Amino acid sequence: MGLSSKVFDQLCSIVGRDHCSRLAEDQVCYAYDATRRFYPPEAVVFPKDAQDVSSVLKLANEHGFFVTPRGAGSGMSGGSLPVKGGVAMVMTRFDRIVNIDTDNLVAVVQPGVITGVFQKTVERKGLFYPPDPSSADFSTLGGNLAECAGGASAVKYGVTRDYVLGLEVVLPTGEIVHFGVRTAKGVVGYDLARLIVGSEGTLGVITEMTLRLLPLPEASKTLLAVYDKMEDAAEGVSEIIRRGIIPRAIEYMDNAAIRCVEGHLGAGLPLDAEAILLIEIDGTETEAGFLMDKVVAVLGDTPCRSIHAAGSKEEAALLWKARKSISPALRRYGTGKLNEDIVVPRSRIPDMVAKIRELSEKTGLTMVSFGHAGDGNIHFNVMFDRDDARQTSLALEAVDAVFDYTLALGGTLSGEHGVGIAKAPYMDKEVSGDVLALMKRIKRAFDPAGILNPGKMLL
Amino acid sequence: MGLSSKVFDQLCSIVGRDHCSRLAEDQVCYAYDATRRFYPPEAVVFPKDAQDVSSVLKLANEHGFFVTPRGAGSGMSGGSLPVKGGVAMVMTRFDRIVNIDTDNLVAVVQPGVITGVFQKTVERKGLFYPPDPSSADFSTLGGNLAECAGGASAVKYGVTRDYVLGLEVVLPTGEIVHFGVRTAKGVVGYDLARLIVGSEGTLGVITEMTLRLLPLPEASKTLLAVYDKMEDAAEGVSEIIRRGIIPRAIEYMDNAAIRCVEGHLGAGLPLDAEAILLIEIDGTETEAGFLMDKVVAVLGDTPCRSIHAAGSKEEAALLWKARKSISPALRRYGTGKLNEDIVVPRSRIPDMVAKIRELSEKTGLTMVSFGHAGDGNIHFNVMFDRDDARQTSLALEAVDAVFDYTLALGGTLSGEHGVGIAKAPYMDKEVSGDVLALMKRIKRAFDPAGILNPGKMLL
Repeated sequence: MGLSSKVFDQLCSIVGRDHCSRLAEDQVCYAYDATRRFYPPEAVVFPKDAQDVSSVLKLANEHGFFVTPRGAGSGMSGGSLPVKGGVAMVMTRFDRIVNIDTDNLVAVVQPGVITGVFQKTVERKGLFYPPDPSSADFSTLGGNLAECAGGASAVKYGVTRDYVLGLEVVLPTGEIVHFGVRTAKGVVGYDLARLIVGSEGTLGVITEMTLRLLPLPEASKTLLAVYDKMEDAAEGVSEIIRRGIIPRAIEYMDNAAIRCVEGHLGAGLPLDAEAILLIEIDGTETEAGFLMDKVVAVLGDTPCRSIHAAGSKEEAALLWKARKSISPALRRYGTGKLNEDIVVPRSRIPDMVAKIRELSEKTGLTMVSFGHAGDGNIHFNVMFDRDDARQTSLALEAVDAVFDYTLALGGTLSGEHGVGIAKAPYMDKEVSGDVLALMKRIKRAFDPAGILNPGKMLL
Repeated sequence: MGLSSKVFDQLCSIVGRDHCSRLAEDQVCYAYDATRRFYPPEAVVFPKDAQDVSSVLKLANEHGFFVTPRGAGSGMSGGSLPVKGGVAMVMTRFDRIVNIDTDNLVAVVQPGVITGVFQKTVERKGLFYPPDPSSADFSTLGGNLAECAGGASAVKYGVTRDYVLGLEVVLPTGEIVHFGVRTAKGVVGYDLARLIVGSEGTLGVITEMTLRLLPLPEASKTLLAVYDKMEDAAEGVSEIIRRGIIPRAIEYMDNAAIRCVEGHLGAGLPLDAEAILLIEIDGTETEAGFLMDKVVAVLGDTPCRSIHAAGSKEEAALLWKARKSISPALRRYGTGKLNEDIVVPRSRIPDMVAKIRELSEKTGLTMVSFGHAGDGNIHFNVMFDRDDARQTSLALEAVDAVFDYTLALGGTLSGEHGVGIAKAPYMDKEVSGDVLALMKRIKRAFDPAGILNPGKMLL
């Protein structure tokens, strides 16, 4: 489409010359996300308010250039990459926590606020914003909403979608609108607030969000259980839930994940274990203690090697640091990494882990799995040398096989990373042609000119 | 549009002659819902499976007749009324609980299953389906999903939307499709499952649903608190939540509601109280007891007249029966009843109750409010003589004033009843023209011929 100097000047006059750039260094800086793919935009704009966003989008419709909104660029599926060029719209100036209403457990926040900053701010008021993607320390709430981020606490508390009450959104055609409500309930009209959540920035640009909060749980307790067999670990998870206990988190790591992160951090994880479970219980002090005793008893009845309750906050924090370090630490296994976040019914995790082991043996590639055992959300990584064509092709074939098996088990191809460009080629494995066609009609209902975040999800 | 004999015969050949009728008695029986408005369909069909539904909808597109899907007809906003004639599609033959997966806390259910039957069935397996509209004993899950039903437990457990994982839906154009997933998480493509929830049967016909379940809480405890001032009751509610306690339910009744239901049931409610709170706490036996003591202490610090913990399951059941009898019992106050379910921020309930009292005094009409104090969802009823034109007009004006004030307080016009025909004329008070236009484009993306449930929500 090509951005003329005249149009660039118009962009500058909307957001101000200090907040608009087409310098090579900015094009490079905003060409990336966590997928490490490289798509430089022609220009970068930093709007300050909904009116700026609206004016940029109206200009885009008028002149036919693409706009791709972006938060911190920490996405795992390429949702914020300007794959067709055009303008990268960086939302980091929307960095204000507008209001925290402690009486009504509601916060009004701008999309550029860092998730972890928001969490800590509400915690200081005794409140709790549960969604906790591993990227919380650097990802933005806007990005979390666009991808419907999950995290470890989803098994008990649900995902980002479950905390969104209302949104201010700029439509791709430039209208500034409100979806949803500012109250706990609301059913007036179609649920467009939740349609925006997880739509990966293709249906509108979020400029303000009203989020639901919970009271902060009084206490949390962390436990590590070590298993010689993945099946036994999975049975432990199922049995906890069968007994009516929903922990705040039930994470697992397979042996490859344990070895990788232990080499990196030295957290004292057992290098020869086939699996470990990291379980966190929260609630009132009494309740958390009571439930933790119950979990220890339940796991004690499974053939686990050891059960260890973290004795201090520091020890619990170290275990969590180990868990959250897996993804970055994996780079030591190869220059190429395919990182998928499939979901299977919780009880089918052992089947999937066996499948992954089989594929690893067959291909000779390191494959690592870990993730949210409580809700069947498996982070599956294939490591390879990306300069080696044979390894690359084996890795892609393995992902394909895992996706097919995921769907055969009744699962889904993404639990929290989204489709973006990474999974777009696989969409039609899971979603039928009729539904894809319907999604395209919905996209057109929002964005008739197709200017907003093109080349994603529906391609 | 008029249904010819030839088309009626084709309908009969789809569903079978025993499941297709245009007898006057069937036209009358399926002309109603809980709004008591009367719109007879030209024909009534009872499909048995998705294929039947698909064939009927394809025929409707071909011959241009309207189809209005319907569950038990217990809706409060007219969502299932065939307001433009055509065919009433009664979904009651979809009455099978297909599967309850105790390991993965997921159930697959057909839409004609009665909500209360489903709840009791999963409870026998130690599981819990929280959404609890007052109509649960007779409304269907399909209707609950179409309207996004709420209920008393929403303050802790959320609404119907929060329990929907995946849907089989027949699109208005006849395609049988799947939206969403069968797992705890899933973000592949636009969130069409949740777009269907609350769309009031205008975007598709649900033929199967995959629902999320929870472990059944071990214990619940019920408490009644009596107040001489509504403001003090509301302050009690706020203080409970400020202390970090989210009860399973926090209901209130105003004086008119108390008098009405007490005259009807004789549950021993204090006739001279300005407000009562009905609070239920659940959790493990220990936790429920501990939290109930805390709630009693918190309310003890407010100027309440009395606090009484139900001593037995029977006593708790009687209190809940009183609460759930209010709506039907109100008929004693007049032949006309306008029944609204506005939501305001929880802390603004006293303002709204004061406004209602002022309107009641001004008009001389009985106005009753009660409902879900925990999430600000107020059931507001105006009673009048429907043969009296002056009273009718005063009642409508009062509703209008309450709606305006609701929006001024940052609220919404419906928390759980939906728009249907009852609130359609008021939609544009809350939803902007740009958003209404977008909703209409979305409707067209699903239903280009406009044959499914016309005349609702967007008119």
